[in-house]
Amino acid sequence: MATVLIHATVSLDGFMADPDGGVDWMFGFPSADEDQRLVQDIMSGIGAVVGGADREQTIVEGELPYGGILGVPVFLMTHTPHDPVVRDGTEYSFVVDDIGAAVAAAALAAGERTVSLLGGSIARQALTLGLVDEIQLHVVPVLLGEGISLFGGLGRRVTLERIDTAAYASETHLRYRVLR
Amino acid sequence: MATVLIHATVSLDGFMADPDGGVDWMFGFPSADEDQRLVQDIMSGIGAVVGGADREQTIVEGELPYGGILGVPVFLMTHTPHDPVVRDGTEYSFVVDDIGAAVAAAALAAGERTVSLLGGSIARQALTLGLVDEIQLHVVPVLLGEGISLFGGLGRRVTLERIDTAAYASETHLRYRVLR
Repeated sequence: MATVLIHATVSLDGFMADPDGGVDWMFGFPSADEDQRLVQDIMSGIGAVVGGADREQTIVEGELPYGGILGVPVFLMTHTPHDPVVRDGTEYSFVVDDIGAAVAAAALAAGERTVSLLGGSIARQALTLGLVDEIQLHVVPVLLGEGISLFGGLGRRVTLERIDTAAYASETHLRYRVLR
Repeated sequence: MATVLIHATVSLDGFMADPDGGVDWMFGFPSADEDQRLVQDIMSGIGAVVGGADREQTIVEGELPYGGILGVPVFLMTHTPHDPVVRDGTEYSFVVDDIGAAVAAAALAAGERTVSLLGGSIARQALTLGLVDEIQLHVVPVLLGEGISLFGGLGRRVTLERIDTAAYASETHLRYRVLR
């Protein structure tokens, strides 16, 4: 069975992006080879991706989940039906509103590999539905003060188990199992 | 010069307490001797404490900063003047509204030791005024979903430097320097 993973880079105060969606603040910090290796290990374990509805536009505009480099099926939540798109060998399927169906389809596509959930809305809905197995955060050493939150508005308590913590240079890598 | 430290135990989603101020969710997780030792080292380095206005009541009701065990001067922010209180050998002074004055008084009292800032409002005001040297968080493996936030409402970007990260059992201990 695929492991369903919330995967995000966040500020220490839990934002994935500044209020305008910008992520420039993530860059410019010292990093170590071990940081790259850890991220590479996670990315090479991903077998499918579920992205938020706001990412529907990105297929047109050019900004793709993981920069389009993973080469695994991507399932994008939308409010209106949309035909699949293939770009650079990656298939982008569109799922209307049903996050459970999107995660199930992604899990089927991922096989024994990981399903990566991207975006706060997807993450919170999947947590609420009990669909999440693990959470992997890369914490950047900055307080943004305001922005687009990963967990904000979750509204329910979720107990976790710490399964991995690593820090080499600037980022802290936190991995948790969701207890159900 | 005293090091001015924001010191807090938080959920992974950045809450210090549940919506009712409860902290029962912090307890019941496995801990290691190293966790105790790390917390003890931080606490033994504290030379003075600054607490939030809401803590004025706690002097009467019995819940004291650090359980009243540190034995160092405590400065409590209030909106109305209040005579100092001595309890179990610890002096609690009251400072009306001026967080800068409270931190300065605490730094004087702390000497070469650490001034610990407790509470979200104090932490955010002190960050805004550029009074904070370091941040020490103990992250409990739980998403609270809602509650009293440490950094929520900060409204400004603060760049940090990761200076220490440790995890032994359930909690993750994160220490940062504030870059100014």
